[in-house]
Amino acid sequence: MNHTGEIRPIRVTIWNEGAHERDQEQVRGIYPDGIHGAIAEAVAGPGVEVRTATFFDPDHGLPDGVLAETDVLFWWGHVLHDQVPDPLVDRIQARVLDGMGLVVLHSGHYSKPFKRLMGTSCTLTWRVHDGGERERIWIVDPAHPIAEDVGEFIDVAQSEMYSEAFDVPPPDHLVFVSWFEGGEVFRSGCCYQRGRGRIFYFSPGHETFPIYNNPQVRRVLANAARWAAPHHDIGSKLANRNRAVPLERIRRS
Amino acid sequence: MNHTGEIRPIRVTIWNEGAHERDQEQVRGIYPDGIHGAIAEAVAGPGVEVRTATFFDPDHGLPDGVLAETDVLFWWGHVLHDQVPDPLVDRIQARVLDGMGLVVLHSGHYSKPFKRLMGTSCTLTWRVHDGGERERIWIVDPAHPIAEDVGEFIDVAQSEMYSEAFDVPPPDHLVFVSWFEGGEVFRSGCCYQRGRGRIFYFSPGHETFPIYNNPQVRRVLANAARWAAPHHDIGSKLANRNRAVPLERIRRS
Amino acid sequence: MNHTGEIRPIRVTIWNEGAHERDQEQVRGIYPDGIHGAIAEAVAGPGVEVRTATFFDPDHGLPDGVLAETDVLFWWGHVLHDQVPDPLVDRIQARVLDGMGLVVLHSGHYSKPFKRLMGTSCTLTWRVHDGGERERIWIVDPAHPIAEDVGEFIDVAQSEMYSEAFDVPPPDHLVFVSWFEGGEVFRSGCCYQRGRGRIFYFSPGHETFPIYNNPQVRRVLANAARWAAPHHDIGSKLANRNRAVPLERIRRS
Amino acid sequence: MNHTGEIRPIRVTIWNEGAHERDQEQVRGIYPDGIHGAIAEAVAGPGVEVRTATFFDPDHGLPDGVLAETDVLFWWGHVLHDQVPDPLVDRIQARVLDGMGLVVLHSGHYSKPFKRLMGTSCTLTWRVHDGGERERIWIVDPAHPIAEDVGEFIDVAQSEMYSEAFDVPPPDHLVFVSWFEGGEVFRSGCCYQRGRGRIFYFSPGHETFPIYNNPQVRRVLANAARWAAPHHDIGSKLANRNRAVPLERIRRS
Repeated sequence: MNHTGEIRPIRVTIWNEGAHERDQEQVRGIYPDGIHGAIAEAVAGPGVEVRTATFFDPDHGLPDGVLAETDVLFWWGHVLHDQVPDPLVDRIQARVLDGMGLVVLHSGHYSKPFKRLMGTSCTLTWRVHDGGERERIWIVDPAHPIAEDVGEFIDVAQSEMYSEAFDVPPPDHLVFVSWFEGGEVFRSGCCYQRGRGRIFYFSPGHETFPIYNNPQVRRVLANAARWAAPHHDIGSKLANRNRAVPLERIRRS
Repeated sequence: MNHTGEIRPIRVTIWNEGAHERDQEQVRGIYPDGIHGAIAEAVAGPGVEVRTATFFDPDHGLPDGVLAETDVLFWWGHVLHDQVPDPLVDRIQARVLDGMGLVVLHSGHYSKPFKRLMGTSCTLTWRVHDGGERERIWIVDPAHPIAEDVGEFIDVAQSEMYSEAFDVPPPDHLVFVSWFEGGEVFRSGCCYQRGRGRIFYFSPGHETFPIYNNPQVRRVLANAARWAAPHHDIGSKLANRNRAVPLERIRRS
Repeated sequence: MNHTGEIRPIRVTIWNEGAHERDQEQVRGIYPDGIHGAIAEAVAGPGVEVRTATFFDPDHGLPDGVLAETDVLFWWGHVLHDQVPDPLVDRIQARVLDGMGLVVLHSGHYSKPFKRLMGTSCTLTWRVHDGGERERIWIVDPAHPIAEDVGEFIDVAQSEMYSEAFDVPPPDHLVFVSWFEGGEVFRSGCCYQRGRGRIFYFSPGHETFPIYNNPQVRRVLANAARWAAPHHDIGSKLANRNRAVPLERIRRS
Repeated sequence: MNHTGEIRPIRVTIWNEGAHERDQEQVRGIYPDGIHGAIAEAVAGPGVEVRTATFFDPDHGLPDGVLAETDVLFWWGHVLHDQVPDPLVDRIQARVLDGMGLVVLHSGHYSKPFKRLMGTSCTLTWRVHDGGERERIWIVDPAHPIAEDVGEFIDVAQSEMYSEAFDVPPPDHLVFVSWFEGGEVFRSGCCYQRGRGRIFYFSPGHETFPIYNNPQVRRVLANAARWAAPHHDIGSKLANRNRAVPLERIRRS
């Protein structure tokens, strides 16, 4: 339930840069409504309102009004990371610290908002073959809300390989670890809290493979939206504050 | 021991903005050699080489050569946070991710390097009276290397109050929690790893009270220098890397 | 929501040893329905079914049937810790590992179930005066579900002092830190996951002070019941398992 | 360095149940001096004193005097877990809480001392073929002291498969994650602190494969001994303590 109780739904905004869909027929073939469209379809459901946004929309799809009314932001980006304006990154960071959830997908590991919030390089090792390779996403914490009804593992026949060492802070919760056919492993599902907001990084999702059509992956996305939604409203903004009057009397000896 | 074994000492650089010493006779009275001088005296010892740097030195005391040859950087700043140039912050962040230790002191909680590496607002609540108030720094993890020979708590008769909620990521290790006479608590000793580097935030140290002359506080500073020093040299730089050839053959079904 | 969705309520069992109420008129005066009665009143609400149990009930109030039908067990104990039978402790541990939530209160830090699940001594330092002393419970993680609508801190005029160093594993989440009038601090709200179950330790609650009548403390208890409830049903029991047939073919070189 | 400074070496005791060496010629062939002998050879070095002990020695090789003079205990057990007497487990737990390091290897995941200190079932999924299968142990935290000079991964041609979900508490630090040829992953190097002692679980080491002869694995064992050694002596024993006299005056309103 979100912080206003039973009535107001979780408001999810799916952001996708949208460049691959524009430039590669292969990607349009897999995701005719865009990667954002596939994610939106996965996340939509009772109690969840979904809208989408792309880099090519006015204000990159994320004017103040949209961010202010977003409970959970999904982020898929790849080739346009550097073109995302810093003031937008500032606003996203501020919203997360103030309670907005953020779900970062796949090559979003190297996006400005994720690097800003992690404070590390977020680098990793990768490999992609034309036909991809098998990734098996193991659930290491079956009781975690993001793992609900996902099963013991998710088998993805064609994937891009991401491997360790992954330069992120130690996750608060590690939910998934991936096995790759070529011999590598990766912490593929990592939870963080930053400020009052929850962040989930989930690595599967290369644009040339239909990974976001996988029912178990879609369940992870839907679970992540619910997990990352702000639990309740804190009210006060984050700020340095002077409490000039102590709660207790101060004795001078 | 540092990564070159017994022979090479830990090279510590103490950075202090130095503005209070320049502008306030009271501060010069407490710290005639500057806050950096007092910290340097605390940290110096067998196997540790210490130099100091201030905001007013050429290149703010931290040209590339100095940072490259620093194993652990101490940071004390307050009124000049905004004037620390972003390219210097970039270089400090890069060095930490590559293994340099960073010890952030007192009002350094709001410095650019610390906020950059934490990814959060790093805000807190504070209060300072003319005579200060009592702070009692409790050791919550007596086995931690930074707590060695510090005892059960440190009593500081005159301190500035810092209190929760402190907007930092959950620390990897919480070593100290402070009690304040006026009724507040604060997580005053927090350990983090970011990239390959270790970060320690330690809150005591207001400029108008002689806190860095306290023998137990000095022991904490000396312990922190040893704890934060890089344990060994990883060699390779952090970067996204393409491992085009898999370690295992990839079978296509 | 619990794992069966909207329909089935969270089933909470409040266990209290009940010795103080039997032996001390003062305690009966504060808690005419027993400490368990006060906690039950705090936790009861829409979507939550509460029952109580005490040491003096048949099977100490926790026969197999009751434990099997408990989603969250609250535990208040003090002078009868040693008399709680080991087989009951075994069953409680097994239920927690299988998903049951456990909320351990006050002197329950030294109970058999808590020590069993923590693996540490769970020792601390304490002090109790006739009139008690002020405890101020600070919220260090305002976004945590257990802190919902609790405010910035909870002021308890009369409390027993518990202080660091508290010998528990580093908590997965630290929600509360307490300040005591006599000069000490304590990690008073600690979250853990063990197996598939969630554990919350909350230290306030001495029997001779009316702490469980404090509206903010009651809100914490109610929040804790919801937080600790199993999120979803994993199904399979925890066991070493032989997966004789590998998921991938194994090549011999 | 251990807590007495440069002079006293780290005193390591390698405990191995020794049943496989007694009963299986294949194991004697691989480890002519026993599994304990191979581990001892790996761990021995400047500043480290090693002795060995087995289940079949008087007092199972661990009388009070030996445990009291052990800084780090290594534990390899498999078929005799149930025969290890509970009072010995009590003494091991007490020593760890008091600062002794504990390195638990392979099937020791299901030993009484490890389960006692973790508080969980410590169950996992396993598979062993006659010829074994490839395990590749990835370093996920290259800056960790236990990973010093180990490289990017360790390739073990013949291993027993251990896979997730592994029912242990979330590790304080995750150092290694293993890839298995048959398609599974495992958190194979996990660090914990319990009381004042450090615990490292390292999963490779099936008795019918010469894994402890692998130079990188041996380096891990040697690193682990140094990492787990007590950093300094706390002095006081863990106990509930009454601090009857407060540090501050208590005011009654």
